[in-house]
Amino acid sequence: MRSLEDYREIVGDRVISQIHRLASKLYGKHIVHVNSTYQGGGVAEILESLVPLMNDAGLDADWRILHGTPDFFTITKKFHNALQGESINFTEMKKRLYLQANEDFSVYANIDHDCVIVHDPQPLPLIRFYKKRQPWIWRCHVDCSNPNEEVWDYFKNFVLRYDAIIISSEDYRRVNLPVDQRIIHPAIDPLDTKNIELSDSDIEKYLKKFDVPTDKPLITQISRFDKWKDPEGVLNVFKLVKEKVDCRLVLCGSMASDDPEGMKIYEKVRRKAKNLIKNNDVILITSENNILVNALQRTSNVIVQKSQREGFGLTITEALWKGTPVVASSVGGICLQIIDGENGFLLEPNDNRGFADRITQLLKNPNQAKEMGKKGKEIVRKNFLITRLLMDYLILLNDVII
Amino acid sequence: MRSLEDYREIVGDRVISQIHRLASKLYGKHIVHVNSTYQGGGVAEILESLVPLMNDAGLDADWRILHGTPDFFTITKKFHNALQGESINFTEMKKRLYLQANEDFSVYANIDHDCVIVHDPQPLPLIRFYKKRQPWIWRCHVDCSNPNEEVWDYFKNFVLRYDAIIISSEDYRRVNLPVDQRIIHPAIDPLDTKNIELSDSDIEKYLKKFDVPTDKPLITQISRFDKWKDPEGVLNVFKLVKEKVDCRLVLCGSMASDDPEGMKIYEKVRRKAKNLIKNNDVILITSENNILVNALQRTSNVIVQKSQREGFGLTITEALWKGTPVVASSVGGICLQIIDGENGFLLEPNDNRGFADRITQLLKNPNQAKEMGKKGKEIVRKNFLITRLLMDYLILLNDVII
Repeated sequence: MRSLEDYREIVGDRVISQIHRLASKLYGKHIVHVNSTYQGGGVAEILESLVPLMNDAGLDADWRILHGTPDFFTITKKFHNALQGESINFTEMKKRLYLQANEDFSVYANIDHDCVIVHDPQPLPLIRFYKKRQPWIWRCHVDCSNPNEEVWDYFKNFVLRYDAIIISSEDYRRVNLPVDQRIIHPAIDPLDTKNIELSDSDIEKYLKKFDVPTDKPLITQISRFDKWKDPEGVLNVFKLVKEKVDCRLVLCGSMASDDPEGMKIYEKVRRKAKNLIKNNDVILITSENNILVNALQRTSNVIVQKSQREGFGLTITEALWKGTPVVASSVGGICLQIIDGENGFLLEPNDNRGFADRITQLLKNPNQAKEMGKKGKEIVRKNFLITRLLMDYLILLNDVII
Repeated sequence: MRSLEDYREIVGDRVISQIHRLASKLYGKHIVHVNSTYQGGGVAEILESLVPLMNDAGLDADWRILHGTPDFFTITKKFHNALQGESINFTEMKKRLYLQANEDFSVYANIDHDCVIVHDPQPLPLIRFYKKRQPWIWRCHVDCSNPNEEVWDYFKNFVLRYDAIIISSEDYRRVNLPVDQRIIHPAIDPLDTKNIELSDSDIEKYLKKFDVPTDKPLITQISRFDKWKDPEGVLNVFKLVKEKVDCRLVLCGSMASDDPEGMKIYEKVRRKAKNLIKNNDVILITSENNILVNALQRTSNVIVQKSQREGFGLTITEALWKGTPVVASSVGGICLQIIDGENGFLLEPNDNRGFADRITQLLKNPNQAKEMGKKGKEIVRKNFLITRLLMDYLILLNDVII
C-alpha cells in the first residue's frame, strides 16, 4: 500500500511534514467518502489515492460506493448535463428514481462516521435519509456556475443541509448560496500507473502493442468520446495542421458504459475520418489502459484538449506533469493550469484556426515546446499533486470536525 | 423501498411466511455483501434486490463495492476467462496488482460483521487481509467446473480459507475441494424495471423510441457483445431462418467499459450484417435500458441465447418470466431452466442448423410457442425468483452463523 514517504522525493520533506502536522488533531477520526460507480470524471481515481493516504496520515478513512442501475445513471447523466446548463425534462419519475437509489443505499451503507464527504450529484440526496449527527460535506466536481435553474433549485433542497461544499475553482462559486463554499483544486497522483515514470522500452512496447507508430510528430487528445470534449472539432483542427506539417492524430478515450451517447459520437468521428484512419494518420483507441495513456502523453509532441466545458481537466494535469505542452480551450479549470504562452496555449473552444496555428507553431519549434513542457511540470508539482489535495482536505476537516 | 409484502401476490403467502420464519434467528445479525464495480453477470442486479429484502426480513445487511482500476479489471477479466478454461500468461505482476487492490480495499471497507459474503473472483483475496473472526462465504457466479489449473490452484489459496462457497449448479461442484459447497441458483426480481408488467402503450413507446418496428416476427438475443455469447453465430442462424420465414433480428447488449474486446466484436458483427442492417432486418442496440429489454422480451416471438458458455443465464430467466419461448445452447445453467421441448429448445452451441430449425418451428406454430411460454413462466415462478434465492441465503446463514 502506498504511503506518504513514497512522495518525499517528488514533493520534498517540507510538504510531508506539513501533512503530518495537519493530521495531528484528527487521529482516529472516522471519515467516509461516498461516490457512485459512475466511472467518469476522475473522481474514483482521486479517491483511490486520497483514501489510503488519509489512513496513512492517521485518520480512519472509509470509502463507500453507491451502486446505480443503468436507469439511475441515465437519469443522473441528464442531471449532470443540466448542472452544466442543458435543458432537461425534469419529471417526478426521474426525481423518484434518484431518491429511491439513495434511500436504498442508506439502508445498507452503514454510515455512522465523524464526518461524511459526498462526491458529485449521484449520492447528494443521501443526507436526507440519515438522522444527521456529524458534519456532511458535498464535493461537487462539476462546473455548476451556470446551471439549469430548475434542477439547481431542486438540488438546493439537499445542498442546504450540508455543512460545507467543495468546488473546484473560484469561478464556480454560487453567490446566492448561504453554505460555506471551499475551493479545492483536483490533483493527480504521480505514483499512479497513469503518471509514473516509464522507461523508453516500456513506452515503445505499449505504443507498439496499440499500433501507434512514431515516425511522424504526434498530436493526441485523451478524452472520452463525448460531445463536451468535441472530438469532431479536434479532427477538423488536425486537418488544418496537416496542411502545414505532416503529423498524426491519436484520439484515445474509453467508451463509458454509463454514456449511451458515446457510441454514437465515436461512430460519427470514425465515419468522418475514414480515409485518414485507413492510411493510419488518425488513430482511434477505445481501450482503457493507463500505461498506454501515460506513454501517449510522454511521446506526443502536443496534447490537445478542445473541451467545450470542463470541470477541471485532469487529463491536462497529467499531460503537463509529463513535460508535454498543451493546447486547450480556455474553459473551466483548464485556465487554472495553463498560463497562455508559458506552459501551453489557451484558445476559444471553437477557434479551430487558432488551435491549428498554435499546434503548428509547437511542431515547428521543438525547443519552445520543450521549454513550455518544463514549466508545465513545475506548475503541477507545486499546485496539482495529490499531496496538496490531501492537505486541503485536512485543513477543511480540522475546521469542521474539531 | 421494496418490501416482502410486495411479493405476496406473485409468490403467495406461504413463501412470504417461510421467509419470515427463516429469518427469526437472524434478527439484527450484521451481514455484509462484497462485490466489485464490474458490471457484468447480473451480480449487482441480484444484490440490489437481495440486500434490501434481507434488511426487511430483520437482518442488518450491508453492501460494499470494491473499486477497481481499469488495469485491475483487465487482469480480473483474464482470470475470469481462465476460470472458464482459457489460457493465461499468469505473471507475478498480475497477482501483485490483484492482491494490491484487495489490500487497499481492506483498509477502507470497514468490515467487522457477523458474516462476510464475497461475490466473484475480484474480491476473493480480501479474506487474506483481515484477522478472521466470523464466517466467510465465497459466492462464485462463474462456471469453474473446467478451469485453467494454474489459476485455480492459486485461487485455492484463498478459497480454502472460506467456511463455505456457493455455486450456481451441481455441475460446478469441485470434487477435490474440501470446502462446504452449497448450490444456490440465481434468480430474478419480478419487481425490477427489467421484469415488471408493462402496458401495451409502454411497450409500443419504448420500441418506437429505439426504432424497432413490429411488422414482422421478432427474434432477439439480449447479451453483451462478447465472444462467449456468439453474436456472430446468431447472425448466421438468423440468415438460415430468414430463408424460411420473413422476420427480424435484434441484438441488444451493452458495451461494458471493462470489456475492451466488446468493441471489436461489435464492429465485426456490424460489418458482417451491413446490408441486413441497412434494410432494417437486423437491429443492433447498445443502449442500456431495462424497460427496452423488458419490452423486447415481451414482444419477441422467440428469444435466442447462443452462448458458448454460461454461468447461469439470467437473460433466459427474464425471457421465460415474460412467457416467451427460448431457443438456447445446452450449456451451464441454461439446462436448469429449459426443459427441451417443454418451455423452449436446447441445442449444441454450434448447431446453427438446429437453432434455425427450432426457431422456424416456433415462428410457424404460434400456439406451440404460446404454450411453451406459459410453462416457462411457471418454472421461473417456482424456482428462479428472488424470494427463493433469499430463502436459500437464510438457510445457509442459519447454518453458518448460529
